[in-house]
Amino acid sequence: MAETTFQIGERASFAKTVTESDVATFAGLIGDFNPIHVDAEYARKSRFGRRVAHGIFTAGLISAVLGNQLPGPGCIYLSQQIEFLAPVFIGDTITAVAEVSEWRADKRIVTLKTDCYNQDDEQVLTGKAVLLVDRAEG
Amino acid sequence: MAETTFQIGERASFAKTVTESDVATFAGLIGDFNPIHVDAEYARKSRFGRRVAHGIFTAGLISAVLGNQLPGPGCIYLSQQIEFLAPVFIGDTITAVAEVSEWRADKRIVTLKTDCYNQDDEQVLTGKAVLLVDRAEG
Amino acid sequence: MAETTFQIGERASFAKTVTESDVATFAGLIGDFNPIHVDAEYARKSRFGRRVAHGIFTAGLISAVLGNQLPGPGCIYLSQQIEFLAPVFIGDTITAVAEVSEWRADKRIVTLKTDCYNQDDEQVLTGKAVLLVDRAEG
Amino acid sequence: MAETTFQIGERASFAKTVTESDVATFAGLIGDFNPIHVDAEYARKSRFGRRVAHGIFTAGLISAVLGNQLPGPGCIYLSQQIEFLAPVFIGDTITAVAEVSEWRADKRIVTLKTDCYNQDDEQVLTGKAVLLVDRAEG
Repeated sequence: MAETTFQIGERASFAKTVTESDVATFAGLIGDFNPIHVDAEYARKSRFGRRVAHGIFTAGLISAVLGNQLPGPGCIYLSQQIEFLAPVFIGDTITAVAEVSEWRADKRIVTLKTDCYNQDDEQVLTGKAVLLVDRAEG
Repeated sequence: MAETTFQIGERASFAKTVTESDVATFAGLIGDFNPIHVDAEYARKSRFGRRVAHGIFTAGLISAVLGNQLPGPGCIYLSQQIEFLAPVFIGDTITAVAEVSEWRADKRIVTLKTDCYNQDDEQVLTGKAVLLVDRAEG
Repeated sequence: MAETTFQIGERASFAKTVTESDVATFAGLIGDFNPIHVDAEYARKSRFGRRVAHGIFTAGLISAVLGNQLPGPGCIYLSQQIEFLAPVFIGDTITAVAEVSEWRADKRIVTLKTDCYNQDDEQVLTGKAVLLVDRAEG
Repeated sequence: MAETTFQIGERASFAKTVTESDVATFAGLIGDFNPIHVDAEYARKSRFGRRVAHGIFTAGLISAVLGNQLPGPGCIYLSQQIEFLAPVFIGDTITAVAEVSEWRADKRIVTLKTDCYNQDDEQVLTGKAVLLVDRAEG
């Protein structure tokens, strides 16, 4: 079986429209009922004017790019740094992009720049992921 | 209305047992189908021997502590650093702990040490969260 | 169209096995993360020795009997009294039974005795429901 | 460890916007498919003109206040009386309020007035909860 390897600058992306159901279900899964996410009346009076998705939900879209595509199945998360740059609203379509910035073949550790954008190309999240890439089984 | 303020060392925590349903639903919500999370056969042959929860799910339990308790309702996530230290398995009970490490009252920005432990007191995640604490409305 | 009418003593029932997924999802839907329901370690040390389902989940099985069967589709809940008699555990099969105890045809209000039993015929819940039965549309 | 105690008039609340996803998922969890909840066409022709949330879902928001906040983690539900006063629609933001009305320290039994309001301050539910408050473990 050929060895997995990564090129600096190699990219992958994943996009999803954030639904009200996503936000409600996500709140319930992780137990985060911050009213800015689940209380439309509270959110209406807040600085954002309406409910925003959980930041960690947006981070989850990065996890999807990493786990499905780049570095892909079997990768193991070592660390993730996240900066939240702008709110994500229900109805927004978020594109998560991962780009390889470093690949240590000896330790099989890959570092990626991870960014998320909304449908207006406004960046909503930036960060950096580090993952271990297991040798394929079998 | 009294001003919110924070003491260095102030803590809050939240615990939840990770169910198979949580992992399956979380995979579907964020779209991360890394087989290490959703393919029991693949996971059996992996270094972990069984399916592990998404790292971002564990991070979500931190979000729950922050959003519900400390700094609590209305807080706005600015950044989160996460290091994944050990795998979280289905059936594990994870306790997320947040502890105030810095409070800049002028900017209303609070920094917290964020850690997660399993039922055997093994630390599975460490990190740091920075949040903006809005003045209460009204 | 024939008038709906009810006989005193008329009964209907519905049974469901309570899964871990039911409990986890129910916690998330209503936002009740009492550790007795979602934290296996806490529950193990509690008087019950393991996680118990939310009482309101069990009450929901009564709602299912009422809404699906007796008085059936279109009924409107006016009130429900509930006494919780014994814990419901993950894996228990709960049968909810509704029995008509009063029918005021003039006001179209039906009262039912509502009881829930586990697989060992131990009663876990008793109560009383009062509903308005709309005339059929059309 | 300090003893838990309660003051008459002590209050806590929890608010959540009711989503279509909540209603659909709740129907599936408890098995109540009364068309007034899940059939938009039926509901359109009903007295309400649109789908209403399950009454027991609204009661669940009370359970959340009780289980998370007051009396809080570890409490055991003994009974709940509920009167449904007005319909709850998809999109409504419901605030559940619990207020201590009686505290029997010897038996460790607390009674609370439980009320729910929508975003227009219309009361949709009233009732009374009785709970046992276990001594903390450890």
